Amino acid sequence: MPQGGPSGELSLTTWFDEEFLETKEQLQKLQDGNHLLFQQVPMVEIDGMKLVQTRSILHYIADKHHLFGKDLKERTLIDMYVEGTLDLLELLIMHPFLKPDDQQKEVANMAQKAIIRYFPVFEKVLRGHGQRFLVGNQLSLADIILLQTILALEEKIPNILSAFPHLQEYTVKISNIPTIKKFLEPGSKKKPPPDDIYVRTVYNIFMP
Amino acid sequence: MPQGGPSGELSLTTWFDEEFLETKEQLQKLQDGNHLLFQQVPMVEIDGMKLVQTRSILHYIADKHHLFGKDLKERTLIDMYVEGTLDLLELLIMHPFLKPDDQQKEVANMAQKAIIRYFPVFEKVLRGHGQRFLVGNQLSLADIILLQTILALEEKIPNILSAFPHLQEYTVKISNIPTIKKFLEPGSKKKPPPDDIYVRTVYNIFMP
Repeated sequence: MPQGGPSGELSLTTWFDEEFLETKEQLQKLQDGNHLLFQQVPMVEIDGMKLVQTRSILHYIADKHHLFGKDLKERTLIDMYVEGTLDLLELLIMHPFLKPDDQQKEVANMAQKAIIRYFPVFEKVLRGHGQRFLVGNQLSLADIILLQTILALEEKIPNILSAFPHLQEYTVKISNIPTIKKFLEPGSKKKPPPDDIYVRTVYNIFMP
Repeated sequence: MPQGGPSGELSLTTWFDEEFLETKEQLQKLQDGNHLLFQQVPMVEIDGMKLVQTRSILHYIADKHHLFGKDLKERTLIDMYVEGTLDLLELLIMHPFLKPDDQQKEVANMAQKAIIRYFPVFEKVLRGHGQRFLVGNQLSLADIILLQTILALEEKIPNILSAFPHLQEYTVKISNIPTIKKFLEPGSKKKPPPDDIYVRTVYNIFMP
């Protein structure tokens, strides 16, 4: 349940509780209790439902909080931007699980995909309409996913936005939206970059 | 544009025109003409938009044709069923591109995933509510994607539904909805199982 922060305002960092898996037994317990529709995590308990599948979770929260545009055309544009950006984000998410020799090559591949395929599209959109957000002059799921992807990519490739001035400005502005700013500050629930312990834990839980 | 069939009714087989890529040059031409938002196919021209990203295309058509339930809870259930089923369908779509030695192993893997992870969920849903469709007693995107996946899986593993009587009955009933029935008949736009020529064509177009 949402809780008020110290100042009485809703604080994003207190909007949800998280439980992280650390052992195979924890996953097994969730599976045995029929808490996971397809036996997989992530799972989000919200509004009496146990949501699974990453996209379905994103879609539900976006719908509930009006982050999907004002009509079907805007929704579809947002959906396309989200799906393209997720293709890039998925490469980032899988990166720590590659063999060390492949990791460096994959950084080059991700940089190329970002710079040639995805960022030019969003740079052009922002330059074209001169607005703060990607679609319909209001915050949408597309902005959230794009910001997350840019920030995660910058952790690996600090100058990744150097040829994209509108995306640089956009990243600063979206990062400064109060709830988002709070989420990006130290002590929030934002995850640190994955380290060796994270990778080992994932392998321990999911490998047969 | 939709066209009337010989009997005057809307016929699914004449609802859309398809163009298949056969050469690198055809893809290059689409890319050079800025027809592909992220330089990738599939792309569907509809209602003045050039839709890309498989899920965005599915979502738009489902929204437009009321295949997403009657409220957000139904929509979310449909979305979860679709996303789970797509995880299975993606294995099927990638299967022809595996090395010959890996293809047989992957058939076993797909069968196991289907039988242990996905089909029990849908069997239980159908047994539980006793209705014809997965969600809300009406046809949804979840039914379309599940039927497609079952039929594609049966092409490789004919007895894949043997332990799932409700899914067997469901498959027959959904297959007999007139527009779907027509789509499954010979001469329709339904694709045949992928063959060597298909695999070679894909490699020729997409490999650098």
